[in-house]
Amino acid sequence: MRVGVVGATGYAGAELVRILSGHPQVELSILTSRQFAGVKFDRVYPAMAGCVSMTCEGLDIEKVCDRAEIVFLALPHQLPMTLVPQFLARKVRVVDLSADFRFSEASVYEAAYQAHAAKDLLHQAVYGLSEIYVEAIQSAVLIGNPGCYPTSTLLPLIPLVRENLLDLDTLIVDSKSGVSGAGRSLAITSHYCQVNESFKAYKIANHRHNPEMNAILSREAGRPVELTFVPHLVPMSRGMLTTIYATPIRKLHAADIRSCLTNAYSDHVFIRLCSGGQSPDTLHVKGTNFCDIGFQLDKSSNRLILISAIDNLVKGAAGQAVQNMNIMLGLDEAVGLRNIPYPL
Amino acid sequence: MRVGVVGATGYAGAELVRILSGHPQVELSILTSRQFAGVKFDRVYPAMAGCVSMTCEGLDIEKVCDRAEIVFLALPHQLPMTLVPQFLARKVRVVDLSADFRFSEASVYEAAYQAHAAKDLLHQAVYGLSEIYVEAIQSAVLIGNPGCYPTSTLLPLIPLVRENLLDLDTLIVDSKSGVSGAGRSLAITSHYCQVNESFKAYKIANHRHNPEMNAILSREAGRPVELTFVPHLVPMSRGMLTTIYATPIRKLHAADIRSCLTNAYSDHVFIRLCSGGQSPDTLHVKGTNFCDIGFQLDKSSNRLILISAIDNLVKGAAGQAVQNMNIMLGLDEAVGLRNIPYPL
Amino acid sequence: MRVGVVGATGYAGAELVRILSGHPQVELSILTSRQFAGVKFDRVYPAMAGCVSMTCEGLDIEKVCDRAEIVFLALPHQLPMTLVPQFLARKVRVVDLSADFRFSEASVYEAAYQAHAAKDLLHQAVYGLSEIYVEAIQSAVLIGNPGCYPTSTLLPLIPLVRENLLDLDTLIVDSKSGVSGAGRSLAITSHYCQVNESFKAYKIANHRHNPEMNAILSREAGRPVELTFVPHLVPMSRGMLTTIYATPIRKLHAADIRSCLTNAYSDHVFIRLCSGGQSPDTLHVKGTNFCDIGFQLDKSSNRLILISAIDNLVKGAAGQAVQNMNIMLGLDEAVGLRNIPYPL
Amino acid sequence: MRVGVVGATGYAGAELVRILSGHPQVELSILTSRQFAGVKFDRVYPAMAGCVSMTCEGLDIEKVCDRAEIVFLALPHQLPMTLVPQFLARKVRVVDLSADFRFSEASVYEAAYQAHAAKDLLHQAVYGLSEIYVEAIQSAVLIGNPGCYPTSTLLPLIPLVRENLLDLDTLIVDSKSGVSGAGRSLAITSHYCQVNESFKAYKIANHRHNPEMNAILSREAGRPVELTFVPHLVPMSRGMLTTIYATPIRKLHAADIRSCLTNAYSDHVFIRLCSGGQSPDTLHVKGTNFCDIGFQLDKSSNRLILISAIDNLVKGAAGQAVQNMNIMLGLDEAVGLRNIPYPL
Repeated sequence: MRVGVVGATGYAGAELVRILSGHPQVELSILTSRQFAGVKFDRVYPAMAGCVSMTCEGLDIEKVCDRAEIVFLALPHQLPMTLVPQFLARKVRVVDLSADFRFSEASVYEAAYQAHAAKDLLHQAVYGLSEIYVEAIQSAVLIGNPGCYPTSTLLPLIPLVRENLLDLDTLIVDSKSGVSGAGRSLAITSHYCQVNESFKAYKIANHRHNPEMNAILSREAGRPVELTFVPHLVPMSRGMLTTIYATPIRKLHAADIRSCLTNAYSDHVFIRLCSGGQSPDTLHVKGTNFCDIGFQLDKSSNRLILISAIDNLVKGAAGQAVQNMNIMLGLDEAVGLRNIPYPL
Repeated sequence: MRVGVVGATGYAGAELVRILSGHPQVELSILTSRQFAGVKFDRVYPAMAGCVSMTCEGLDIEKVCDRAEIVFLALPHQLPMTLVPQFLARKVRVVDLSADFRFSEASVYEAAYQAHAAKDLLHQAVYGLSEIYVEAIQSAVLIGNPGCYPTSTLLPLIPLVRENLLDLDTLIVDSKSGVSGAGRSLAITSHYCQVNESFKAYKIANHRHNPEMNAILSREAGRPVELTFVPHLVPMSRGMLTTIYATPIRKLHAADIRSCLTNAYSDHVFIRLCSGGQSPDTLHVKGTNFCDIGFQLDKSSNRLILISAIDNLVKGAAGQAVQNMNIMLGLDEAVGLRNIPYPL
Repeated sequence: MRVGVVGATGYAGAELVRILSGHPQVELSILTSRQFAGVKFDRVYPAMAGCVSMTCEGLDIEKVCDRAEIVFLALPHQLPMTLVPQFLARKVRVVDLSADFRFSEASVYEAAYQAHAAKDLLHQAVYGLSEIYVEAIQSAVLIGNPGCYPTSTLLPLIPLVRENLLDLDTLIVDSKSGVSGAGRSLAITSHYCQVNESFKAYKIANHRHNPEMNAILSREAGRPVELTFVPHLVPMSRGMLTTIYATPIRKLHAADIRSCLTNAYSDHVFIRLCSGGQSPDTLHVKGTNFCDIGFQLDKSSNRLILISAIDNLVKGAAGQAVQNMNIMLGLDEAVGLRNIPYPL
Repeated sequence: MRVGVVGATGYAGAELVRILSGHPQVELSILTSRQFAGVKFDRVYPAMAGCVSMTCEGLDIEKVCDRAEIVFLALPHQLPMTLVPQFLARKVRVVDLSADFRFSEASVYEAAYQAHAAKDLLHQAVYGLSEIYVEAIQSAVLIGNPGCYPTSTLLPLIPLVRENLLDLDTLIVDSKSGVSGAGRSLAITSHYCQVNESFKAYKIANHRHNPEMNAILSREAGRPVELTFVPHLVPMSRGMLTTIYATPIRKLHAADIRSCLTNAYSDHVFIRLCSGGQSPDTLHVKGTNFCDIGFQLDKSSNRLILISAIDNLVKGAAGQAVQNMNIMLGLDEAVGLRNIPYPL
């Protein structure tokens, strides 16, 4: 099975290259990059010298389709919607890491982003939250790979929502992301001296991942859900921690929560439920596809606090994308993603 | 006016030394340190060479009282309760940075900490949230200087609580602190390699600053308030950002919030209300006594999001302590605290 | 005395604004910025809200000259050479932070930079290494403010060179700088994720500050000096540490070195000679105008190791520029620069 | 082949656990830890949850020898010298990461450390600089694994010394290390707030790795070599960059250097020679066993500048130790060490 990466030199793209280069069941056969067409990949990422010997190419759909059966798109939104129809027409399956195919209703996408040029494909696209939508992913030809914030929020929440344990009007999501989430593009907000020793919220209750989470939760709950979402920027390269507040609809014990999450995820190696007294930490998932989940019941206020930690570039982007490919190909979901974590 | 610092070599103590050394209206006359008695202060903090020439001394109450009219205690809790009676008996006023004199009811303190050995002084102690309790501070002989988390939480909340704008059963406080908040003591949790590239919550719904906030808010509201509080650790030395979620009791507009906060703080130079579109950032308050406050109304969920940023060692500890001293002495609250912030 | 800053929104410019805003003997009367003309300074640097209320203006020479008697230029090289003649013609004194007026010989400048458009002014310009060239600075109308690397290198070296203690053919300078030295402009090399957890050399034996150091040392030594210079980038915002290796021309003892440096700098408050056993650390000079100097004799190899630490934006740029202004104005060199250092 | 790690919970030990857990040709069969005996390894390093399920044990030589044919010692120096004789007596081969068996002459060790209790084993021990001493390692029963600074210094230098290209009296080594090099033990020098935004030299010309480098270079050169060595601490977790200055004994061209290094290392996958215009960066080797080498000739001063980058915990400790084990076992030196680097 040959795979390609379109947009290989952004951070998510480069992480795809890292994972796919070491994947034992697929062959990474083509990389494209607009900015670095004609440049060896290891000139852009010298870390890869001796490990990845490919050269970036300009994007030529025919060529990509000749050389790959599955293609990953790691591009800014709005570009994929014009490319995906061409890939699908040539029977090349697509995992799209942008937002273009994450929404089943075009109107929701268009309210948050802009006009959609391939609305007719939305019903074909499967939202690639791997552990949750395994079956749909197995038969998908087009995956809308989830955003990093939605991944970190939905994985702890959905099992509890499915068991109807939470008052859906009380959901508050306070997320914190490392800087790589903003990508490799130059912006004053990613300048070292602006980020270092700085901690701040941004796009307060106004981030585009908010409607994405609302849409999935509404579908799961069978009723409209509007959560409050505030993302923050942490002075570190990788990692995302999400703290979720929710009021249970009835008196719950820790064992109820644990049991619900264990039932949902016991067959899924990448979800690690923290044992009592431990708390998720981005350091523990750095460079891995794990999503660590912990929780605490605040008795005095009768609130449940859920906490998740992921690596925003792995489980929040490239790792989950490869996990989805594995599922699509009928492989073990963890193939190529089992690197042992670093102790620090 | 001569002042002393007891516990001068911890981080809050050293910050007191920094501020008081440059204070134009007081003379820093004695420093004590158990660990570094007999050692020049600038051997412990070489940054201070050429600026602070004092030597740390062991703690001798008589000597301190001979040499200072006001004393700052920057010690772990439980020690001040044994020292404060001796200082007050000698007519030396005290600003205590520990938790020992922050609670008016001993039982609340004892539930969160341990037995209190000077309960009879609690009614004399004034909670030193400078902008809020100016009048009581003016005539105080003993200040219980607020914790860093309570400072960052109460300053944005109290004006709104006083105007009865918020449903007090909905308060959620998600705070993020730099590492200096844990002090200079050695612990694996402050080891560089455990903190760097790490973000995590700790003492979830179980931090001792939670009852401190509850107590003050309950007093302000005239009814019991139990907020949910989750602190997090940020890989940076200084700074604290607090994100507060609350549901208004009636339909509010941004102008209502702004007007309430402006009314409360227009006479107080250290409270800066962010203008629309800007958001507090710990980088903007680093090394200063400012508390920056921003807010956003999330219309879809009808929630108010309040955000504050302080330097945990300045407004969250030493700076507010000096501000309290200024008020006690009848000086402008800002004397000695007006250093121009660094652009980065 | 009114002063202006041309190029106020770069990092060195903003640092000038910080220092000059708090300077008790001058009035900061005009700020210019090409990129932010018409924008309030505290919108660009929100840290300054409540402290600096000025608005950036476009550059109009007449206006600047009407409103200031001294002007600081914090611009990229090549621009100042066209502006300085106009300022001088209007009797406005200039402290130029670029390289344009650091060289007495145009040919040396032109070899390292580009053609010089105001060669005739080079003989008037004084190299503003404050402690070394006090007398010339006192009567200067045009200061070429030294580069950060040259400042950190020349301050420890010049006294030893003047006493002819070192073999000038053996000088090796290994410098390490924080990221702010590269300025506020956007570049992939200042992207947080490229700098964080990265340490590297750059412009190896090819940095433009090398000829600047060679020129000054050659002048001091009365013979050509060519040192080897390798700059490195440290993952931190501020600070510069320079490690210098030199072989003494005769057997030296630590006391000889100490005595030489003490003689040179005992009257200069911003040079701090580390006592035995202590070593310069950028943390100790952060935000200050200090240059800390330490040294060690390596007996087995008969080499002297000199180490200096400065804040690249203060002593390495804006602080030294203000120090030079102080000297030009006949003030104490330290006025406005005596802020007490932070303990961390 | 079963292997054990003695001292598994320090940073080098944990890194050994990471690498050996994923090694396809050996079975990690026992972990010991004095501090954490009886504790599951993934409680100490929660990153490893789901990946390493072993429990740390107290050190019992018999038990270790029953369960492992090769043992890695990741202990402070002075302990291994008492343990190694017991392991060897039981035919268990040892890779010792401490300094105890790095020196062939006891007197040199004793001058830098303390009395040696197993001098008679020194002649059996092989200095495990993998690419340099392959043959001796193949037949070794006891490896003295090199220090991190010596590894980063000797790999670029030895080929040039062997070809007699350098004046050995001119060697200067300026090294910079991340904080993990100081280990997991608590010390104020590893406290986050002392390291963050700090850069400094330490143990100037007085570090114990200096005699280690001198000893190896002297052996290679066949004459005494005394280099000048200054280590520095960088605010990052992992990584080491070493900048070496040396005067060639004759006029050299870049092609001569490149050819010498290429000849030495073309068969060794972990040595990457940077192509022209690129410079080693610790970020490019983070988490890998690579040693990147670059160089520059400074024509004006006739000096060669060599630069190397390694991950101090991998090529500088655990990775090289496993590489040595691979060589001892007749495996490809890279087995278990070929993880694709992270792009950031």
